[in-house]
Amino acid sequence: MTPRVDGDRMRRDFDTLSSFGATPEGGVSRPTFSEAHLAARQWFLNRAKAEGLGTGVDSAGNHSALLHARNRNASVLLLGSHLDSVPEGGRFDGAIGVVAALHVLLAIKAAGIDLPFNLEAIDFTDEEGTLMGLLGSEALAGTLTPEALQSPRGGRDALLAGLERAALREDRLHEARRDPATLVGYLELHIEQGQRLERERVQIGVVTRIVGSRSFRIVVRGLGGHAGTMPMDARRDAAVAAARIILAAREIVVRDFPDSVITVGDLRLEPAAFNVVAGLARLSLEFRSQHDADLDAIESAIFARFHADSQADGIDLEVTQVARWQPTVLDPSMIEAIERVAGGLRLTTTRLPSSAGHDAQALAPVIPTGMIFVPSIGGVSHDPREETAWEDVVNGANVLLGTVIELSRRRVMG
Amino acid sequence: MTPRVDGDRMRRDFDTLSSFGATPEGGVSRPTFSEAHLAARQWFLNRAKAEGLGTGVDSAGNHSALLHARNRNASVLLLGSHLDSVPEGGRFDGAIGVVAALHVLLAIKAAGIDLPFNLEAIDFTDEEGTLMGLLGSEALAGTLTPEALQSPRGGRDALLAGLERAALREDRLHEARRDPATLVGYLELHIEQGQRLERERVQIGVVTRIVGSRSFRIVVRGLGGHAGTMPMDARRDAAVAAARIILAAREIVVRDFPDSVITVGDLRLEPAAFNVVAGLARLSLEFRSQHDADLDAIESAIFARFHADSQADGIDLEVTQVARWQPTVLDPSMIEAIERVAGGLRLTTTRLPSSAGHDAQALAPVIPTGMIFVPSIGGVSHDPREETAWEDVVNGANVLLGTVIELSRRRVMG
Repeated sequence: MTPRVDGDRMRRDFDTLSSFGATPEGGVSRPTFSEAHLAARQWFLNRAKAEGLGTGVDSAGNHSALLHARNRNASVLLLGSHLDSVPEGGRFDGAIGVVAALHVLLAIKAAGIDLPFNLEAIDFTDEEGTLMGLLGSEALAGTLTPEALQSPRGGRDALLAGLERAALREDRLHEARRDPATLVGYLELHIEQGQRLERERVQIGVVTRIVGSRSFRIVVRGLGGHAGTMPMDARRDAAVAAARIILAAREIVVRDFPDSVITVGDLRLEPAAFNVVAGLARLSLEFRSQHDADLDAIESAIFARFHADSQADGIDLEVTQVARWQPTVLDPSMIEAIERVAGGLRLTTTRLPSSAGHDAQALAPVIPTGMIFVPSIGGVSHDPREETAWEDVVNGANVLLGTVIELSRRRVMG
Repeated sequence: MTPRVDGDRMRRDFDTLSSFGATPEGGVSRPTFSEAHLAARQWFLNRAKAEGLGTGVDSAGNHSALLHARNRNASVLLLGSHLDSVPEGGRFDGAIGVVAALHVLLAIKAAGIDLPFNLEAIDFTDEEGTLMGLLGSEALAGTLTPEALQSPRGGRDALLAGLERAALREDRLHEARRDPATLVGYLELHIEQGQRLERERVQIGVVTRIVGSRSFRIVVRGLGGHAGTMPMDARRDAAVAAARIILAAREIVVRDFPDSVITVGDLRLEPAAFNVVAGLARLSLEFRSQHDADLDAIESAIFARFHADSQADGIDLEVTQVARWQPTVLDPSMIEAIERVAGGLRLTTTRLPSSAGHDAQALAPVIPTGMIFVPSIGGVSHDPREETAWEDVVNGANVLLGTVIELSRRRVMG
């Protein structure tokens, strides 16, 4: 008989996990290395230990639960996701991938199955990018560059403070790299965060590729001054310049790049008072596309416009790229394995691209990588109202489990 | 011989005062009841005591230095301004009015002049509105309403925390009211904060009226969500809605109200992350005009537009008025007295309206009130680069001193 995850026990674990950083609105707030995040990670290791699994933390802070193969020198199949969240985020994003990975290990252990590889449930550090995004998975893949560490999305100071809080050393992050030859591959269960599965009434999404994105910090320098005495025609108001940027970005992408998205998710004015014209604005801008050429074209178009507008208004712009992730194609044999397993479980599937970024995109360039999506109710994500039917989570976890077994057979066969 | 203020000694006091909350850019940051602000106020009382003047603090936290008349029951002439600043503001705004008032008392004391009134140099609480604006002067005038205390510009929580920090009680603020029959009037020296005196090469501005203003907090509620998976056409992005408000406000006022100004000085997004579409934006908006009818017309026009735009975009707006100051006319006999004194000192003068708000506008409705402006270099204010030639400050202080003597003669004559 094919083993199954213990859906009820997994639910209890998920509910416990959801209590770390729980918000009044029903979501969680677990930014990287916040108290709630560190507590959630510790809980994950404790749960693994309590179940007799091995545990480990690497030099990038990735937390792992381990089910060893009889041959400990065998290579490793990674299953995972992340326990950090955006500020005021939802309970499912990342968390179900880690909980399901843990329960796949428990189900295989309970069934007494001998795998030809070590099985590792991994909670990657800083997927969401409170500090820089995909920090742990890029470190493991060996693609974390010193340059990227110099201009992280959350700012250099926050990165250094965060690493210190987690007792990590910047100069040792790269030691988390694993030789791809020692890895069988990577599988990740995640919520879709979109509405396609729900609309098409499909139970399992099989991810074909993952969106690329580019992130920039923009500092807008105008001229601060008295909100009563500075005449309107003499102003170089950073708030007005920032507003033009927000609207121009939206206009250009909606008009010329209908398959892409662009977002200004943060904006701060200085000095930030009723009676002072803002001399400075700081914006966080990112855009995403499935095609690298579109990312190039969007970048050219928006910055040409921003610079032209700013020059006309006497505003100075300082632009820093803080993240750049290529669109990524997932492994065809992983896609087929997931589909075959889901079919065997009589679950409906569809192939779809991911419009959200994931740790899988850091791993895909170096090892065979597959991703399983389950439906998001209303497509809502990065929001406390994020929700997935528990039955769908259990289905996804069983597909993850089945795919592990499928890969083990293939491994033995191969 | 007409007495004069001691310009050098006043300069040393001003420099000491500028060290409280000094910023690297050369300005000061002394928001109401900040540590730097409280220290500056204490310094003011200490200086007065050291010079043998009386001191007092009323139940609204207004700090005073007192030069008593022989008849202590005589009425009081108030001279003053404020020691608080906007965040990252300049050294002169408010501060020169308090320092000059102190030095007028010292000059009269040194000259042994017997005044027919008590002379009081007063540092009003929270002129700039970190908490609510004109708090101390309105309390003294008796116009501070319980309703205004419920929705202050800086937010109710900040007001309560601030009052506690300064050991003030909300229910006792109104006790700072003085019976207008006990007050001779109010005189305030201030920097112009505009460019008119500089452009016209005039040494002394005589203020005829003070701009009115209205301030609002606007909460923009859209729909938060994932910056990758929310399609552009499904978004109700609070950042985009806020940007439309900023540009519409500017457009309407520039086009239809050329003598007025409008400013969004603060804007915050929530949850404020690269990869989350903002579900909420909080804006601080204010506009100013010399005419009440224009304030009414601007208020109607902008909110009609904001509400129409928001409705079209599926955005909910919550608008709270947090300050409302009427345009105010200053006392004609004060204006004439100031002009006569300045003329006697061979200083050039011009009459002009104030585009900035001042404590004088709180006093003007209840007692004869006059204001003296000195030139601002480049018109820069509410900014660390705020500057006034010291000679101009001394001129202004001597006009203030002369006006006190002028009023004392009139008092005796009358």
